[in-house]
Amino acid sequence: MKEFDLIARLTRNLPTHPGVIAGPGDDCALLDLGLPLHWVVLKTDAVVEGIHFTTETPPAQVGHKAMARVLSDFAAAAATPTAALVTLALPPAYDPERIDTLYQGLCETARRWNVAIVGGETTTNPDRVLISISALGTVEKARSVRRSGAQPGDALFVSGELGGSIAGHHLDFQPRLEEARWLTEQFSVHAMIDLSDGLAGDLRHLTSASGVGAELFETSLPIRREAKLRARSGESPKSAVLAALTDGEDFELLFAVSKKDAVPVLDGWRARFPEVRLTCIGRILPEPSIRLRDRQGPKPMPTHGYVHFA
Amino acid sequence: MKEFDLIARLTRNLPTHPGVIAGPGDDCALLDLGLPLHWVVLKTDAVVEGIHFTTETPPAQVGHKAMARVLSDFAAAAATPTAALVTLALPPAYDPERIDTLYQGLCETARRWNVAIVGGETTTNPDRVLISISALGTVEKARSVRRSGAQPGDALFVSGELGGSIAGHHLDFQPRLEEARWLTEQFSVHAMIDLSDGLAGDLRHLTSASGVGAELFETSLPIRREAKLRARSGESPKSAVLAALTDGEDFELLFAVSKKDAVPVLDGWRARFPEVRLTCIGRILPEPSIRLRDRQGPKPMPTHGYVHFA
Repeated sequence: MKEFDLIARLTRNLPTHPGVIAGPGDDCALLDLGLPLHWVVLKTDAVVEGIHFTTETPPAQVGHKAMARVLSDFAAAAATPTAALVTLALPPAYDPERIDTLYQGLCETARRWNVAIVGGETTTNPDRVLISISALGTVEKARSVRRSGAQPGDALFVSGELGGSIAGHHLDFQPRLEEARWLTEQFSVHAMIDLSDGLAGDLRHLTSASGVGAELFETSLPIRREAKLRARSGESPKSAVLAALTDGEDFELLFAVSKKDAVPVLDGWRARFPEVRLTCIGRILPEPSIRLRDRQGPKPMPTHGYVHFA
Repeated sequence: MKEFDLIARLTRNLPTHPGVIAGPGDDCALLDLGLPLHWVVLKTDAVVEGIHFTTETPPAQVGHKAMARVLSDFAAAAATPTAALVTLALPPAYDPERIDTLYQGLCETARRWNVAIVGGETTTNPDRVLISISALGTVEKARSVRRSGAQPGDALFVSGELGGSIAGHHLDFQPRLEEARWLTEQFSVHAMIDLSDGLAGDLRHLTSASGVGAELFETSLPIRREAKLRARSGESPKSAVLAALTDGEDFELLFAVSKKDAVPVLDGWRARFPEVRLTCIGRILPEPSIRLRDRQGPKPMPTHGYVHFA
C-alpha cells in the first residue's frame, strides 16, 4: 500500500471538534484556542536511519535535517514556530558522543529560528535511529495560507532550485520561514506548500486541495546544478527535468498568487532575498489536470513525485 | 548510559525563550501563548514494539496504550488535552488490517476524551512498529500543578493500585483526567506526577523537583492482586511490595496535599469516584531522602524504579 492510500484509509472518520480549523491533509494543523488574532499551528515529522539519512551521515546534519523539515512545514503555512518536542528512538548501544552531536545540530537550528525545545523523550528503537519532532507555533488568522486557495489564472512560483537534493541539499537546506512571512505580509498568497515529495507530487496536492489544475513551463524550471550533473554523468537514470519534478526533499516553497501580483512578487523578492532564487514556473488552470509545456507545446506530466512509503 | 543520565546530558543548555513556563523535566511543557487565563500544554510519548508491547498484543490495545500514555501525562498536569498528532513508523510489509485496527483503538480513546486527531504521518521503520503521539491542551494558570510544589508535612496519595501491570493493566488503563480535574478544582494540590516508571522512581522525581524527601507506609501500599499472585506463584522474582514500588506502567496519579486536606480529599474522592481506589501512602519529609516504613520502623527504599533505557 502506498503512503497516500494508507493515510487516506486511516484519516477517514478521525475524532475532531469545532476548535479544529485545519486537520490532516494540510502542511500544518490549525487550531482555535481562543486567541483573538491567531491560530495555533501544530506539525510533526520523523526521520529514520536508512530512509532519510544513512549511518554515514554526520550526526549534526541529521539533527539539523530533523528540525529543519518541520520548520519547512511552518514556512508553508506562513506560521512562526515557537516550541518543539523531540523524540529520539535509539539502539541501546548507540554512541553517546554521536547522540550529543546530533542533538547539538538539532538545537542549533532550533535556536537560529527562536524555537524552544520544551520536552521530548528518549526511547529504544533496537535496530536504527529514529527522530520524531513535533512543533507548535502561531499564525495570524489574516495571514494564514493553506494548500486550498489557488485560483485559475494564478501565477505559480517556486523558491530556490529543484532536483538532485540527495547530493547534499537534503542535509543543509534552510527552511524558508523569513521568505514566507515576508510574502504573506506583502501579498495575498492564495495557496502554498513546501516541496518534500517533489514538484510533480506536491503540485498535485496543491491543485487537488484547490480543485484546479496547472501548467508548468518546462524550460523555466530552476534545475539544481547537481541534478544536471547527475543526469549527464549517468549517476542518476533520470533526465535533469525529471529529477527536478520528482527527486523530492527540495524543501522549497511552491505558491500561487494573482497574475497581477506576479511582477511585484518577483521584484520585491529579488530586492529582499537577493541570494534566494525565485522563479515563475507555471500557472493555475481551471480544469483539474497537470500538464507540462515545452517548446513543442503541452504534454501530460511524466510521473508522480517521490513516494516514501513504497 | 541510563535514560535519565542521557536526558540530563542532552537537556543541558537547550534553546528556550520567555514564553516557556515549564520545559523538559516536568510531565508536560507549559507555554504562555498570550491566553489570559491558560497555559498551553504540550507532551509527546512513544511506544515501540518489543519494548512497550509485543507482536502478539492485539493492535487495538496498542493504539489505546499509545494514546492513553500521553493523556496520563495531561492528567498529571491537571490539563485538558485538545488535539493530537500521530506518527506511525511501520515495517513496509505490515498488515494494513492491523494498522487500521490499531488506529481505531487510538481514535476511540482520543474520542472518549474529546481529543481531535489533527495530523501526523506514516513513515517506514523497517524492523518494528513505533508509534509516537504528541498532544496539545490547556490548563488554567490557577489550577496548573507540577512536580515541584510538595511541602514537608504534606500527605501523599496514590490513585488505583500498583504493581503487576504487565498482567494486563498496562494495555487497558484509563488516564485519570477526570480525577485530576476534580482534585484541582476542589483542593490545592501541591505536586502531582503520573506513575510510569514505578512508585519508587517517580516519587524520587517528585521529591527531587520539590527539594524534599518522603516516607512511604509499606503496609498501606495498594498492591494490585496480579502483583501478589505473580509473587506468590514465583512468576515474578520480586516480592509484592517490590513489584508495587518498581514494576512501572501503573499510570496512576501520585500527589501531595496539605495534611489538613487529607481527610476531605479522601472523603470527596470516595463520593465522586467510588470505583477508583485512593490511598494515603505516606508523607513528605523535609530532608531529601526516601524511606519506607514497615512495622519494624523506617528503612531505606529498596531500589529505583523501572529504567526504560537500559
